[in-house]
Amino acid sequence: MEELRQLCKHASDVKISVGMLDSDTKDRVLTDAAAALIASEEAILKANEEDIERAKSNHMPDGLLDRLTLNHDRIAGMADGLRQVAALDDPIGEVLSMKKRPNGLIIGKRRVPLGVIGIIYEARPNVTADAFALCFKTGNCVILKGGSDAICSNIAIVDALKSALVKNHVTESALSLITSTDRSTTMEFMKMDEYVDLLIPRGGHGLIQNVVKNATIPVIETGTGNCHIYVDAEADLPMAVRIIKNAKTQRIGVCNACESIVVHKSVEKEFLPMLYEALSPKNVELRTDASALACLGNDHLLVKEATEEDWGTEYLDYILSVKTVENIDEAIEHINHYTTHHSEAIITNNYDRAQHFLDAIDSACVYVNASTRFSDGNEFGFGAEIGISTQKLHARGPMGLEALTSYKYIIYGNGQIRE
Amino acid sequence: MEELRQLCKHASDVKISVGMLDSDTKDRVLTDAAAALIASEEAILKANEEDIERAKSNHMPDGLLDRLTLNHDRIAGMADGLRQVAALDDPIGEVLSMKKRPNGLIIGKRRVPLGVIGIIYEARPNVTADAFALCFKTGNCVILKGGSDAICSNIAIVDALKSALVKNHVTESALSLITSTDRSTTMEFMKMDEYVDLLIPRGGHGLIQNVVKNATIPVIETGTGNCHIYVDAEADLPMAVRIIKNAKTQRIGVCNACESIVVHKSVEKEFLPMLYEALSPKNVELRTDASALACLGNDHLLVKEATEEDWGTEYLDYILSVKTVENIDEAIEHINHYTTHHSEAIITNNYDRAQHFLDAIDSACVYVNASTRFSDGNEFGFGAEIGISTQKLHARGPMGLEALTSYKYIIYGNGQIRE
Repeated sequence: MEELRQLCKHASDVKISVGMLDSDTKDRVLTDAAAALIASEEAILKANEEDIERAKSNHMPDGLLDRLTLNHDRIAGMADGLRQVAALDDPIGEVLSMKKRPNGLIIGKRRVPLGVIGIIYEARPNVTADAFALCFKTGNCVILKGGSDAICSNIAIVDALKSALVKNHVTESALSLITSTDRSTTMEFMKMDEYVDLLIPRGGHGLIQNVVKNATIPVIETGTGNCHIYVDAEADLPMAVRIIKNAKTQRIGVCNACESIVVHKSVEKEFLPMLYEALSPKNVELRTDASALACLGNDHLLVKEATEEDWGTEYLDYILSVKTVENIDEAIEHINHYTTHHSEAIITNNYDRAQHFLDAIDSACVYVNASTRFSDGNEFGFGAEIGISTQKLHARGPMGLEALTSYKYIIYGNGQIRE
Repeated sequence: MEELRQLCKHASDVKISVGMLDSDTKDRVLTDAAAALIASEEAILKANEEDIERAKSNHMPDGLLDRLTLNHDRIAGMADGLRQVAALDDPIGEVLSMKKRPNGLIIGKRRVPLGVIGIIYEARPNVTADAFALCFKTGNCVILKGGSDAICSNIAIVDALKSALVKNHVTESALSLITSTDRSTTMEFMKMDEYVDLLIPRGGHGLIQNVVKNATIPVIETGTGNCHIYVDAEADLPMAVRIIKNAKTQRIGVCNACESIVVHKSVEKEFLPMLYEALSPKNVELRTDASALACLGNDHLLVKEATEEDWGTEYLDYILSVKTVENIDEAIEHINHYTTHHSEAIITNNYDRAQHFLDAIDSACVYVNASTRFSDGNEFGFGAEIGISTQKLHARGPMGLEALTSYKYIIYGNGQIRE
């Protein structure tokens, strides 16, 4: 506990100086860190093997084991990631606005780092390098708490990253790894609001909710996406099929995948069989309301009646819920009620209803005639992504580097006093 | 408790429709609300008398009693405030950026309301109208919990404001007043994160800390200002005296008043007696370190040696702490350690040190050669002020209407799917 406090305090003590590093130095550190990862491949793979052996003896499921596993290509990928972040523009120091007031004061709004950022994540060692790159690029100190199953890998990766800090005479406290694998340490960490300015949980729903409920540090909530696509009475139906197929099946386990569709009753008879035909080769199960069920017939293996629970479920699987409605307002009400406020789309050629949907849907990303799968920092042109925020304060939707910054007002005077 | 939940739920249920009101309607409501306040003067003053009588019998101190008291001019002032907010530009709907991606998607970032905003404040009935105006202008529903000593006044004011909503066919749930004066209700209110998007405490340090510690709703922390002015070796000393006198004495009980000065030792002998001479007619007590004490002599009634506690104290009184330093870095370290991150100033004619101070001071507003008293939404040209944030997330420094908004991405496609 005292050790954790000291670690957080050290980060807080150096945050001003780290925040003032020039872009060249930061980019050199990131490039050197990429080289250090490559040079340390042997040590990192050896440490990773230790983690994998322990995980196997603890019967870790295959999917998680795969995410824990490093190899030559994955280390090269981590190094590439560091170099890509180095190549981005530095957002720090940008003056967002500046104006002269009638009394001659010149007031500017300058982008600055947040300070100390804590990242709590699962046993995915690639996040270690990624989180460091994004936080350091934005002049923040970062404190990492990775999943304990990856502890040896994380220590080896952080050693390599720190060597780049040392080489460039930057304080090592710019990057800290919490090495205690005790659960109570994570709980204590979430309450270090005296030293840590922001906490970002990266991982599954359970991890995120644990952080949101227990942290006294401000949190940016990311991730959960119960995304809807509404097929309007005036939709281009073949386009609707293509978009829904893409949003549902192009990648299954991601937060911007479509989990539920809402269909106008005037097109359900024509549309639902078309959709079924497109999705059944992918074994997508449809969970529908009674009206849709009547259109499809319930003799299909892949069609079931939905329960109330289905409307609120993010399946992350080959399942899609299907709701039918009498009009767009019913669709909007349904979506706003069950959504996690991530991404929703309308498929329509009707101008008014497209605009109305954009206005009335209370989600981070609202689409007309496109797949929800585009909700992504890279697809939005941000160059990097920290996550996708489903909250409204500070940052909403895909978060680029700017989400890791704050601002301060700088004011140039020549003796002004207030009358 | 169930009543409170219903009240919060009603606000949440209507937030989308309130958020979609056009500017004309919102401005008409605010103008009508101003007229309704004037028309209801008799009822409001009668209710206010009830509050005052009860407060007097509870021996409320004079200062608080003054803030509770309404009269003809103060009601006219509240009405003016509503009209001023009506006259401001509506920030909602502004498209902050919009661009076309290589795949043809047009991605825009549109300013939207936050949703439901809770305001917890003290027995100052004028805040009731003010908070409604700012939240409603930005398309938010507002739930007010005012000090229980002002409950009758608040009910009368809210009645008048609501009549303007009704007149314009806007749901009354756009404005809610929690009428229970039970302390436990306030505690329950802070935990209504299911329905309330943001909580802003307005008032003294105790109220704000109570909200920060107990709320599960995100909070914007405002207010505390232990503001410093650093007098550099190359300061224009008469300017430094003018600025410090202004920042300390122009208004005493405000968060942007100067509470502490830091003086370079090379000018302390010349500067401190000048300052003493300027401040002693105002009876400003100086609490100094040993070096400053030696310059001033400790035979003055208004000079005392400072204790460690003084450096961290926001006096809100005719007291100023005085620290002397060998160089600017010592000054910066001292300030960053003891500041509440509100507003600080350097007085200097040295270019490098002015820039270094702007870079290194970790506060919302950093000044060169001007009084800290300018940290204010109106002085910054925002037209209105919700408060001054001393946190880094979401909003920092003086907050205008924009601080009560979020954004969403609106994306226009023509059939794009992700490959």
